Amino acid sequence: MQDIPTNKRKIINDPVYGFIDIPRDLIFDLIEHPYFQRLRRIKQLGLTHLVYPGALHTRFHHSIGAMHLMSEALNILKIKGHKIKKADREGALVAILLHDIGHGPFSHALEHSLVKNIPHETLSGLMMEQLNAEFDGELTTGLEIFNHQHPKKFLSQLVASQLDMDRLDYLTRDSFFTGVSEGVIGTQRIIKMLNVADGKLVADIKGIYSIEKFIIARRIMYWQVYLHKTVLAAEHMLIRILERARYLVKAGTDLFATPSLKLFLQNDFNIADLSDNSDLLAHFSRIDDFDILTSVKIWSQFDGDRVLSMLCGSLINRKLFRCEIQKEPFDYFYIENIRTKIGERLNLTEEEARYFLISDTTSNYTYHLGKDNITVLSKSGKLSDITQASDLLNIDVLTRVNTKHFICYPKIL
Amino acid sequence: MQDIPTNKRKIINDPVYGFIDIPRDLIFDLIEHPYFQRLRRIKQLGLTHLVYPGALHTRFHHSIGAMHLMSEALNILKIKGHKIKKADREGALVAILLHDIGHGPFSHALEHSLVKNIPHETLSGLMMEQLNAEFDGELTTGLEIFNHQHPKKFLSQLVASQLDMDRLDYLTRDSFFTGVSEGVIGTQRIIKMLNVADGKLVADIKGIYSIEKFIIARRIMYWQVYLHKTVLAAEHMLIRILERARYLVKAGTDLFATPSLKLFLQNDFNIADLSDNSDLLAHFSRIDDFDILTSVKIWSQFDGDRVLSMLCGSLINRKLFRCEIQKEPFDYFYIENIRTKIGERLNLTEEEARYFLISDTTSNYTYHLGKDNITVLSKSGKLSDITQASDLLNIDVLTRVNTKHFICYPKIL
Amino acid sequence: MQDIPTNKRKIINDPVYGFIDIPRDLIFDLIEHPYFQRLRRIKQLGLTHLVYPGALHTRFHHSIGAMHLMSEALNILKIKGHKIKKADREGALVAILLHDIGHGPFSHALEHSLVKNIPHETLSGLMMEQLNAEFDGELTTGLEIFNHQHPKKFLSQLVASQLDMDRLDYLTRDSFFTGVSEGVIGTQRIIKMLNVADGKLVADIKGIYSIEKFIIARRIMYWQVYLHKTVLAAEHMLIRILERARYLVKAGTDLFATPSLKLFLQNDFNIADLSDNSDLLAHFSRIDDFDILTSVKIWSQFDGDRVLSMLCGSLINRKLFRCEIQKEPFDYFYIENIRTKIGERLNLTEEEARYFLISDTTSNYTYHLGKDNITVLSKSGKLSDITQASDLLNIDVLTRVNTKHFICYPKIL
Amino acid sequence: MQDIPTNKRKIINDPVYGFIDIPRDLIFDLIEHPYFQRLRRIKQLGLTHLVYPGALHTRFHHSIGAMHLMSEALNILKIKGHKIKKADREGALVAILLHDIGHGPFSHALEHSLVKNIPHETLSGLMMEQLNAEFDGELTTGLEIFNHQHPKKFLSQLVASQLDMDRLDYLTRDSFFTGVSEGVIGTQRIIKMLNVADGKLVADIKGIYSIEKFIIARRIMYWQVYLHKTVLAAEHMLIRILERARYLVKAGTDLFATPSLKLFLQNDFNIADLSDNSDLLAHFSRIDDFDILTSVKIWSQFDGDRVLSMLCGSLINRKLFRCEIQKEPFDYFYIENIRTKIGERLNLTEEEARYFLISDTTSNYTYHLGKDNITVLSKSGKLSDITQASDLLNIDVLTRVNTKHFICYPKIL
Repeated sequence: MQDIPTNKRKIINDPVYGFIDIPRDLIFDLIEHPYFQRLRRIKQLGLTHLVYPGALHTRFHHSIGAMHLMSEALNILKIKGHKIKKADREGALVAILLHDIGHGPFSHALEHSLVKNIPHETLSGLMMEQLNAEFDGELTTGLEIFNHQHPKKFLSQLVASQLDMDRLDYLTRDSFFTGVSEGVIGTQRIIKMLNVADGKLVADIKGIYSIEKFIIARRIMYWQVYLHKTVLAAEHMLIRILERARYLVKAGTDLFATPSLKLFLQNDFNIADLSDNSDLLAHFSRIDDFDILTSVKIWSQFDGDRVLSMLCGSLINRKLFRCEIQKEPFDYFYIENIRTKIGERLNLTEEEARYFLISDTTSNYTYHLGKDNITVLSKSGKLSDITQASDLLNIDVLTRVNTKHFICYPKIL
Repeated sequence: MQDIPTNKRKIINDPVYGFIDIPRDLIFDLIEHPYFQRLRRIKQLGLTHLVYPGALHTRFHHSIGAMHLMSEALNILKIKGHKIKKADREGALVAILLHDIGHGPFSHALEHSLVKNIPHETLSGLMMEQLNAEFDGELTTGLEIFNHQHPKKFLSQLVASQLDMDRLDYLTRDSFFTGVSEGVIGTQRIIKMLNVADGKLVADIKGIYSIEKFIIARRIMYWQVYLHKTVLAAEHMLIRILERARYLVKAGTDLFATPSLKLFLQNDFNIADLSDNSDLLAHFSRIDDFDILTSVKIWSQFDGDRVLSMLCGSLINRKLFRCEIQKEPFDYFYIENIRTKIGERLNLTEEEARYFLISDTTSNYTYHLGKDNITVLSKSGKLSDITQASDLLNIDVLTRVNTKHFICYPKIL
Repeated sequence: MQDIPTNKRKIINDPVYGFIDIPRDLIFDLIEHPYFQRLRRIKQLGLTHLVYPGALHTRFHHSIGAMHLMSEALNILKIKGHKIKKADREGALVAILLHDIGHGPFSHALEHSLVKNIPHETLSGLMMEQLNAEFDGELTTGLEIFNHQHPKKFLSQLVASQLDMDRLDYLTRDSFFTGVSEGVIGTQRIIKMLNVADGKLVADIKGIYSIEKFIIARRIMYWQVYLHKTVLAAEHMLIRILERARYLVKAGTDLFATPSLKLFLQNDFNIADLSDNSDLLAHFSRIDDFDILTSVKIWSQFDGDRVLSMLCGSLINRKLFRCEIQKEPFDYFYIENIRTKIGERLNLTEEEARYFLISDTTSNYTYHLGKDNITVLSKSGKLSDITQASDLLNIDVLTRVNTKHFICYPKIL
Repeated sequence: MQDIPTNKRKIINDPVYGFIDIPRDLIFDLIEHPYFQRLRRIKQLGLTHLVYPGALHTRFHHSIGAMHLMSEALNILKIKGHKIKKADREGALVAILLHDIGHGPFSHALEHSLVKNIPHETLSGLMMEQLNAEFDGELTTGLEIFNHQHPKKFLSQLVASQLDMDRLDYLTRDSFFTGVSEGVIGTQRIIKMLNVADGKLVADIKGIYSIEKFIIARRIMYWQVYLHKTVLAAEHMLIRILERARYLVKAGTDLFATPSLKLFLQNDFNIADLSDNSDLLAHFSRIDDFDILTSVKIWSQFDGDRVLSMLCGSLINRKLFRCEIQKEPFDYFYIENIRTKIGERLNLTEEEARYFLISDTTSNYTYHLGKDNITVLSKSGKLSDITQASDLLNIDVLTRVNTKHFICYPKIL
């Protein structure tokens, strides 16, 4: 962060957009807060850098980028004649800036490992409320927008919908840092096409091709990056490592770990625990990629448990599991056969061998036909869903939940 | 063009790909030939620069760019184990380098104005044959490949098919110079995915998303650039100008024109004329964007014919016609009403007013299910059409010929 | 140019900066004017595209780009607390938009061929005055700024000084279209560093490295692009062609030419002629790259004068002269020897041979220590010249006028 | 890393260069080795990301990028007629790939904190020898080149000189990830200009402007990025943290740390210890950015020592010290006054306050006139130093060692 001395405005060098202005003091103070600085230590794409070595960018950078796009989008809407009060503008900037504040280490990869069944959005909400208390209520409008409780619906939709600033930034940024040019989208053009009709976010009809391409690009990024099978293997290896560590800690093994991580390994906390106990939330906020990866590295030398040390050694030294992926479920006997072989080759009990065979499904959809639809505004003022306005996109395929089955196991087999 | 002194290799600075090597003497000599240098004076995108001011790039640059991609594609195929003889390699480079050599002024816009019913590919063939004679038969293999008569089918497919180097270059280049980022495709990745199976060009299955995006990007470029309605208006104004000029010249009016252009205005030549008469072909080769635009500019001051001077003045000073475009044919009375008003407002006879009302259709398709299909090679060696391999692309929509009706007329109405 | 339907604001797709907004109606109307549209037909870099094939961009595009940077610079100055009245803002935009309106065909190459001893700035002034009359005085402030007569000196300096928006745009744009990455400068950063002190344009000290690099980049572009020896050869061939054509026309030869070009070939007009005679100015404004190049092409077939046809044929078919360049003057006998050989080989009289031997000098300086200095503002408020503030730049070298001698002659020797 | 199935060639998606090929099995095996994978956990630019948030790229990525440039450079030299044996080619690739293998955590920032007085080059040599043993001598040629003992001097110069592939990659890469466009250099062009004369690496005279710009760009990156005062502050805070931790550990305090880090805190190892004891080298190789940053985070909560916890808290939460920098040494009493105030405000003893006041110098030079000069080859075959060949660069300034004095202390003062 660099200051222009004459008036203390802050600008940030961003390789993606050039320069980003920090538009006001509240935003600056939030960025300086330890909760936000913590996002510097949480990679946007978890272990994806094991496949795409440039993908080391963090939630910190993404959140600021999304805030920048929000600022541009609000400018466009203003130019198009939609009134946005100063407080609402600030609220929208706050909401997008903090939308990922609740992310834990390795982002989505461990979303359900440290704390059971708590999506990061819930944690973001909890942390924003705590920050709101600290900032004497200055985040109230931001929270309303974040929680979809603000009367101006389009502000919430800019934060979270199928055409939100979050997606625009992450597609652009992930494409930039992975080097996957297929993910490039016309961010600047899409933003110029945004509009409001009936209080809701819409896109002018002229932007239809850019939006078609945005939908396709997101689909491409899913299959080529987010669900890349080597990434799937790495992330599930990490999940198994934490399962094993938790098992050992509960069984009384003295395992190297930072104090906060150890606390979460020893206990199965749920959302009620965290919302009731601000100390616990503080502990959660101290865990990031560094705690996890440092532990994995140390555990790879741990001679008290072969399962843990083998898993950790494989991950640290990038001896990643083979991953097979297909549309149909895998045959039961095929899997059993692999399990048996793992036991034999690695000299493991059946229980232990379980850690070396991952069998799971992953699913995504390209476009969700629900309440967060992308709506297109024709020149005559008619509103229609993008899937109707576009004659290209195959709505059946786009809206179908696409489930794939995969298994991962050591390459030595 | 710059020479590295030590060994006379030529490299060209290309803002799109960085540096392009001219790989061998024959290619260099062809580039130096007046027929090829002439392509410097034919814009790739006709009058598109009236809408996208950066789009001034030429067929010269595109042809060299496509040759560069051909060179990269052949390297990849070689690395994948497909034998390509030196002579075949040279032939493929020649064929792609010269594939547009027969283009007339303003490329597609005037394709049927100067010479009736002769597609540029036919003219390219004629000119390549003449060059082959001049170069003592050195282009024979190139001609075979260009004419799809070479035993290695994939070489011809690299020159002309739905996944050829022509398209890869023009999408990349047109997107670069127009600034329409939606046209960006993963050129480098697509080329890395090329392969040969059963003697035909295919793409490895891993490239499927890049190819999906390539098909979508091409569709976007059609609607956003190639068939942009202001471009349509400008190009049809130019066609009308040449019609009127031809009419006047035949009626004996002494109109400013370069000698070669005058010859083609005075006569209605056909393909037989050009193939029988190499002088005539030489005359054709002397006409480029400069003859046409200079004449249009002079004609805008011509006081012998109001129709011509008004049309030319409008084009030169960018007072372009309004263009309406729709899926259904326009109503007869709606059109007649415009025609009548034009006559009244501009004080023209019915016959003259005809020049100020353009009513036509334009059609394109996104993907053509025919002999030049894009074929995908699965890991198990199975071949399938891209529309089957991809579960996204709506084959009905993609392969449907998409026809639109448009009318253009002066904005003063 | 594309319109966003909802509010008629115009945006232009620029491959260099993304989107450019046309900020107000006056600017839009000026862009629509035939004088400005004419800049579409004048290449920014003359014949440079014969070496760098992408360099086909025009004065039209450059002028709009410079206007865009002016708009950004004024925003920054406003943020830094400098008051700029609405009328002054508009004036500055007008002045930069029209600063090149007086350029003739092939920009600098023919600056002294068609009209003797009249720099394009003088012609720009003449044409702006004529436009001002047409626009009922709306350009008055713009003219004051252009003529350095406005009380806010920094506005004129943004238009014309050693750190003006003209240079920032042309370096960025020329680098982009030639593909010479050495010319890339930190445009965005330099603009963020602009400031005003004592009523003059300065740069904050933090921008010193970016300005050092800007000075170096300009120097590199001079030697690598603007004064590239093959470009020098081509441009001087064109100058000789016009000399010969003028000689023939005056001698009564009937030479193909557009009417306006013929008028300027037949007469030696001076600045008084053009300022007294608005018809003559109108004629001048009708001549652009197209008139010249079309004539050169036709003259290459002219059998009435071997000198003209040979020169034109060489230029059109890119058989460019060899160019030798050195710091010292060429030896008299060395030149005479070449001249004799040309006469013998080409069978020309001594007078005729003169056209085939160009012997001239070119000079440029990297930084001019005069009234348009680049001034740097330290944190304590001290002002100093960039050459003092920077400890890198060798002031002796930078300010020295760098003169080189060159000769060009046919490669057949 | 992705495999093209047909022939097991590996390619890596690099956002900087597009795709990078892994050219041969040995290179692939070295990349897979834990020593090399470890570089994934060492940031190229230490704590620079606290100022430029994109600068998270690692030594892993840089080393592969430099190897890619080496491959291109060798191709160019081969085309220019210089014979390079297959074994020498492989050796050069190995040498550049492993040139940074000995880097410790946070690269240069901690180069002298963990192990005293051992530059990373020495450690790289030690680790390469160990790898050579593991790979049965396959790295012998690479080691010769790395150690400047190979008869083909130019190969060593491609690895380490003032125009080596290391610098070309790091300038390009650091500029890309920081977003500092001033650092952009014409990498591709410089490589095309490389040549060999008298067995040494030289640049063709045509590349002189690109090399001037490369030297300037490196200078800019020094002052704008590498020695940015906020980065200086952060890195020296980290050095002080490790000093304090070492002091506490030696005094018997039980401090959280990974086992390998603890070993290096407890002992002052020197180069002899590491070269004699391969176990110790293995321990060193286990310490990376993650050990350090995780410890700093935990220590920020440590209530056994206020000095350590305050320093760590400030670094983790980016409450970085203010940094003053100037050409002259700071006044003794000015510094003493700050020291006294720190003691008072933070309630620290004089000894403790020492940790909160950094007073040091930093020096760099732009160009070193010594044995690794950049030599330019004229067309006539004459060799000269770049500083003589260029009339721009001020040799006095360039070669002068530029020393600056700086002090850093908490902003609360």
